[in-house]
Amino acid sequence: MKFPKTYTLKEISQITQAEFVGDENFSVTGINEIHVVEHGDVVFVDHPKYYNKALNSAASVILINKKVDCPKGKALLISDDPFRDFNRLSNYFKPFNPANKSIASSAKIGKNTIIQPQVFIGNNVVIGDNCIIHAHVAIYDNCVIGNDVTIHSGTILGADAFYYKNRPTGYDKLISSGRVVIKDHVDIGANCTIDKGVTGDTIIGEGSKLDNLIQIAHDTVIGKKCLLASLTAIAGCTIIEDEVTIWGQCGIVSGITIGKKAVLMAQSGVSKSIAGGKIYWGSPVTELRDRQRELISIKKLPELLKKMK
Amino acid sequence: MKFPKTYTLKEISQITQAEFVGDENFSVTGINEIHVVEHGDVVFVDHPKYYNKALNSAASVILINKKVDCPKGKALLISDDPFRDFNRLSNYFKPFNPANKSIASSAKIGKNTIIQPQVFIGNNVVIGDNCIIHAHVAIYDNCVIGNDVTIHSGTILGADAFYYKNRPTGYDKLISSGRVVIKDHVDIGANCTIDKGVTGDTIIGEGSKLDNLIQIAHDTVIGKKCLLASLTAIAGCTIIEDEVTIWGQCGIVSGITIGKKAVLMAQSGVSKSIAGGKIYWGSPVTELRDRQRELISIKKLPELLKKMK
Amino acid sequence: MKFPKTYTLKEISQITQAEFVGDENFSVTGINEIHVVEHGDVVFVDHPKYYNKALNSAASVILINKKVDCPKGKALLISDDPFRDFNRLSNYFKPFNPANKSIASSAKIGKNTIIQPQVFIGNNVVIGDNCIIHAHVAIYDNCVIGNDVTIHSGTILGADAFYYKNRPTGYDKLISSGRVVIKDHVDIGANCTIDKGVTGDTIIGEGSKLDNLIQIAHDTVIGKKCLLASLTAIAGCTIIEDEVTIWGQCGIVSGITIGKKAVLMAQSGVSKSIAGGKIYWGSPVTELRDRQRELISIKKLPELLKKMK
Repeated sequence: MKFPKTYTLKEISQITQAEFVGDENFSVTGINEIHVVEHGDVVFVDHPKYYNKALNSAASVILINKKVDCPKGKALLISDDPFRDFNRLSNYFKPFNPANKSIASSAKIGKNTIIQPQVFIGNNVVIGDNCIIHAHVAIYDNCVIGNDVTIHSGTILGADAFYYKNRPTGYDKLISSGRVVIKDHVDIGANCTIDKGVTGDTIIGEGSKLDNLIQIAHDTVIGKKCLLASLTAIAGCTIIEDEVTIWGQCGIVSGITIGKKAVLMAQSGVSKSIAGGKIYWGSPVTELRDRQRELISIKKLPELLKKMK
Repeated sequence: MKFPKTYTLKEISQITQAEFVGDENFSVTGINEIHVVEHGDVVFVDHPKYYNKALNSAASVILINKKVDCPKGKALLISDDPFRDFNRLSNYFKPFNPANKSIASSAKIGKNTIIQPQVFIGNNVVIGDNCIIHAHVAIYDNCVIGNDVTIHSGTILGADAFYYKNRPTGYDKLISSGRVVIKDHVDIGANCTIDKGVTGDTIIGEGSKLDNLIQIAHDTVIGKKCLLASLTAIAGCTIIEDEVTIWGQCGIVSGITIGKKAVLMAQSGVSKSIAGGKIYWGSPVTELRDRQRELISIKKLPELLKKMK
Repeated sequence: MKFPKTYTLKEISQITQAEFVGDENFSVTGINEIHVVEHGDVVFVDHPKYYNKALNSAASVILINKKVDCPKGKALLISDDPFRDFNRLSNYFKPFNPANKSIASSAKIGKNTIIQPQVFIGNNVVIGDNCIIHAHVAIYDNCVIGNDVTIHSGTILGADAFYYKNRPTGYDKLISSGRVVIKDHVDIGANCTIDKGVTGDTIIGEGSKLDNLIQIAHDTVIGKKCLLASLTAIAGCTIIEDEVTIWGQCGIVSGITIGKKAVLMAQSGVSKSIAGGKIYWGSPVTELRDRQRELISIKKLPELLKKMK
């Protein structure tokens, strides 16, 4: 998430209430999570395991719970609770603005786009030309939708990331300041849920088609011309490359990559990155042929065990 | 889908922009996909593999991408792109009509039927007597609902079929001109999605009861007195015969038949037609007893392999 | 479900149209299903298998289809159809009241609680302070929501239990008179469905966090500080103890208990109660390590079978 203008380190330090290390006029232009961080961004880190990754990332400012040496050309924000202070930034720059009407005045809706009754469109939403947004779709603040997009009833774009810090006092939510971005020529079925990015974008690539009741979690990026069948769930920060086909009721964990033109047979479960251009099946997935061989073997197993007695 | 009146072959040729073979006054009464085609219908075929099936079907007019001999008593429409021209017919006879209010003036709602707030009811919808349609239900154009039906909040009837032609330029949608038909005494839970038929009807049979978050795809026919538990998905053009029970999170592929009184245990996956009167389990399903035997064998397998070393 | 005041046995007999056995002034204070029944309650039983359980339960009045001896200190209601007559009580005390507006006048909404556009809130709903109820949420009559609760768009609280009696004439619905109770600091994602209790409460415990597209059936009780990921389904009358973590697409049957701090890996299926403090995987679940061992063995199986030939 980029700030509307460049801030100084001192200003950011005041918003976070964290002590700064560096030039007070050091330029800060946004915030991001470690996996999408860019030059100018604040990143946060609160576990020694990830200190080096954060300090050596593209981030310009590291919000950290230890007094470390400041890397050259960067700045630090020292805090006893970086998670809390990162949330302060999200709340400051992307506060939740209650709606005072069903379609926000700040929403921009393109030419020949049809908005059916009872659609909710939040603040600063942008919708392109020639779209059909069916009844009961809800589009949270700041989402961006391209041209020639169809979204069926009951689909929700931009709900909060399912992302919590486990504290003794309870789960503490990381505030989502990101967006959902739907590219041109995408179709989304009924009652899908596509969560906003924590700081970045959840993206559905050009020409991809989603069936009903599909879950796409925060910061996940679906490539171009993918097909996703009903009741499939893709966890956060996962990359689905172009022309991937995912049949019904598949589950894919967070933080992995499904290679270009991969095909997942129905009810597959994927827990590791898999190469493109192949057909997979099972939970956990293996290549289709291997899975088929396993299934044939399992069928023979009861008889085999009987013989061996 | 039947036309509102009988058209001549010449008129249909003009709508499709496809060249006709046959008597210009030949009667044409509707369009349908191959699996539900009837006398008087136009059917389309664009792959040599299915030419004979289409030419020998009940269809009266075959929209085809090859100059073949016209079967006796039938007519042809010759096109370089039957898929595109079939869509022209769907668009002509069932164009998308944007709603200008939440409950269309053309909708017919029966006696003692309760429509809760914030329901969307499209054009030409028919709802019978003694129904309860809960808040946030969306019923697309042309759906038909019987008597004594309850539909819980967030359920969507009549979204488009998930049916695309893979073209070099992207996925091209087959336009859905069919309906959803809900028979008497059906209950449908919350946040279900039941898609309209491509040209025919998606049907939920009399007295069937659906739990929450269930997906029923285009042209699927559920029999009488079936029970479907939560998060089950049934793909398109499948037949579920009467008194079938399907427990939670089952998946059923397209184009198959589940026999009368079959029972599917939870999380089953069905990829082929199965006989009625039996209990099934697993993914892919086998009969319950066989699956149980396999599971017991698998439990013994690690020990067996250790011994064999 | 408790009555608004104490009724006499004679009055309850008149509402049910069932013959009473006992003092006509015997106090009756509510109705409940067998698993949550309390002193003062009417319970119903219509199968000899459960007669003793009902007669020896905490219930004060047993609605039964056999002339049995009345247990000491209790009363009986003799009926040829206890299910039907129990429904008469539910209908009498909790009749369905059609809404005449989107947010019922009788609903109580706390301080600093934000209700986004197009939310449906039924009769007698209570919502605490500092909540955010997003667009298109539907909250049926009598639900209770604590403080600091967030509910995302499209989520439905309080739809009917999926609970039917199989009669020759069709499935007969047990009328739900219970509630959904959401405790403090709960977050619920988008397009979830949480059904009301049949007579008791479906409860989401303090500090628990639910992802999107989750199904919680009637009378299920989720403990404190649980995490439930997307597309998980929990059937009715199940107890999830505190601090349980359930990853995506899990299914849990009715009437069981998941012990404190248990963890279910994604796509697990649970058909029996399981102890707390352990990690489980598979369908049906076993402990994670056992499941991993099975999977390794299965991979070796095709090769083993080849060798044995």
